[in-house]
Amino acid sequence: MDPRVDKIVGGDLVAAASLMRALDDDLPGARAALRAIYPHGGRAFVVGVTGAPGVGKSTLVDALVGVARGRGERVAVVAVDPSSPFSGGALLGDRVRMQRHALDEGVFIRSLATRGQQGGLSRSTTATVAVLDAAGFPLVLVETVGAGQAEIDVADAADAVIVVTAPGLGDEVQALKAGLLEIADVLVVNKADREGADRALADLTTMLALAAFPSRPGDPRRAAPALVRASAATGAGVTDVTAAVDALRAAPAAERSARRRRQAARQVTALVGEQARAAAYAAIGTEDAPGPLASTVDEVAARKLDPWSAAEALTTGNR
Amino acid sequence: MDPRVDKIVGGDLVAAASLMRALDDDLPGARAALRAIYPHGGRAFVVGVTGAPGVGKSTLVDALVGVARGRGERVAVVAVDPSSPFSGGALLGDRVRMQRHALDEGVFIRSLATRGQQGGLSRSTTATVAVLDAAGFPLVLVETVGAGQAEIDVADAADAVIVVTAPGLGDEVQALKAGLLEIADVLVVNKADREGADRALADLTTMLALAAFPSRPGDPRRAAPALVRASAATGAGVTDVTAAVDALRAAPAAERSARRRRQAARQVTALVGEQARAAAYAAIGTEDAPGPLASTVDEVAARKLDPWSAAEALTTGNR
Repeated sequence: MDPRVDKIVGGDLVAAASLMRALDDDLPGARAALRAIYPHGGRAFVVGVTGAPGVGKSTLVDALVGVARGRGERVAVVAVDPSSPFSGGALLGDRVRMQRHALDEGVFIRSLATRGQQGGLSRSTTATVAVLDAAGFPLVLVETVGAGQAEIDVADAADAVIVVTAPGLGDEVQALKAGLLEIADVLVVNKADREGADRALADLTTMLALAAFPSRPGDPRRAAPALVRASAATGAGVTDVTAAVDALRAAPAAERSARRRRQAARQVTALVGEQARAAAYAAIGTEDAPGPLASTVDEVAARKLDPWSAAEALTTGNR
Repeated sequence: MDPRVDKIVGGDLVAAASLMRALDDDLPGARAALRAIYPHGGRAFVVGVTGAPGVGKSTLVDALVGVARGRGERVAVVAVDPSSPFSGGALLGDRVRMQRHALDEGVFIRSLATRGQQGGLSRSTTATVAVLDAAGFPLVLVETVGAGQAEIDVADAADAVIVVTAPGLGDEVQALKAGLLEIADVLVVNKADREGADRALADLTTMLALAAFPSRPGDPRRAAPALVRASAATGAGVTDVTAAVDALRAAPAAERSARRRRQAARQVTALVGEQARAAAYAAIGTEDAPGPLASTVDEVAARKLDPWSAAEALTTGNR
């Protein structure tokens, strides 16, 4: 048995950080240790925080960390957002802002690189959350930039999802329509001291009131998210966000367990798909070395063969 | 032979639209027709336009359509951006703005739904572009919202990629760092009449000048994108964007064919991966019906089994 396992389950953060790094580098034994700690998790409440760049997600996460610490609750932050100061990718001013938690032992911050990760991102996030959960953090905040597949993955990994928007981003309401509303448990209009905040709130209120609100089929959550006006930078509305999250934390066990079963299904399904894809890729080789893919690609590039027939032939081994 | 094939290759847009709808609905014969027209394409220049919501992608696309029409060139727009007025998803004001092309027979607009499409989005985009290409459009503009996987897919389907940013979106430069710079052939700072534009341009210039500019390994494009200041809404800088795109259209044949071979490789590889994943999903069943996945998921949700071991067991058929 990996000695890190008992340490992590006992709350040893040095061991937890070591395992996370080992998982990143795919070192021998890391996955086995991850599997061994998994049964010890399940107690953390995982909150996804997502939204477009510039809406103030990091500032809100920072404020939520402050609230948790004020209650004496330990909290972990997983920053998957490349623009987040938590991930170390931001300008100096933002980093300085984060310093107030840097020496607080009750706050653990872990950033995940996002570049070029397809599928791997959700795997890393899931693994990181599993380690933090097993290490005993009662609250884990996962910050992701909202758009594309990443925030859907977060919805599948989180017990609650906060979608953050802000006035003045152009088609913010439209962008929300395109998928983020579907995953929101709490919908925050941040930077609410800006011009256009009233209009954004009114628009969202109308959208939420309409029967057409798109909840996912079979989704046990209530039909519409809580709508909160906030200005995380000044602290305004942060208690309302906290109250909305607390309400979700207090959800009946049956509701929570239905959500967790769905999460498990999506995680396992995604992993199975990823493994199948990796196996298929290995079988066809690369475009740069002689092999089935390379010869097929030459024909496609010359328009002698279409990509769909090419893929079919490769899949069925007819190349 | 599908009668639509000859019509499309002859430039019949009614037939082209019919095939696109048939492909969306996966009607019998649609894929065969797509395969049949594929060899007739390859002449269109495909330009991807991507960036965060609110940077003015649609306005720039609109301006580029205007430039093409001014030259007497026919142009097709594929809107994969859910917030684009081209996709019909935007507010009335934006739709009205687009009306000026609505009656122009030299402009063809096709919007693609993005909701819930994983992998399928790039397939639809590729198919749509192939139809428009075979139908004889010399220029195809593909607008996608930039973040996550979608814009990477666009890079693989386009002969040139315009990445649009704008001042005042917060960490716009940081967001660019996270992947969009890697795929940009032309980098547009739009809304350049806004406060912060000079700073954004200076920051980007510095980034591009640094040796660390991340070009993709084996990528035959030049190392750094053209940086253009624009204000698409007023028309300022649009000729500079056009000039940058024209320079790419005039690239040597060898360079273009290397890029197209790489595109073909990525398209075929993605299709093979998708087929493998679909086959794996079909084999394990769903979480809601008795079968391998459902029983495994119950154990994962109860934390008796970890998701990684569960996926492995399902993949190897040990469930």
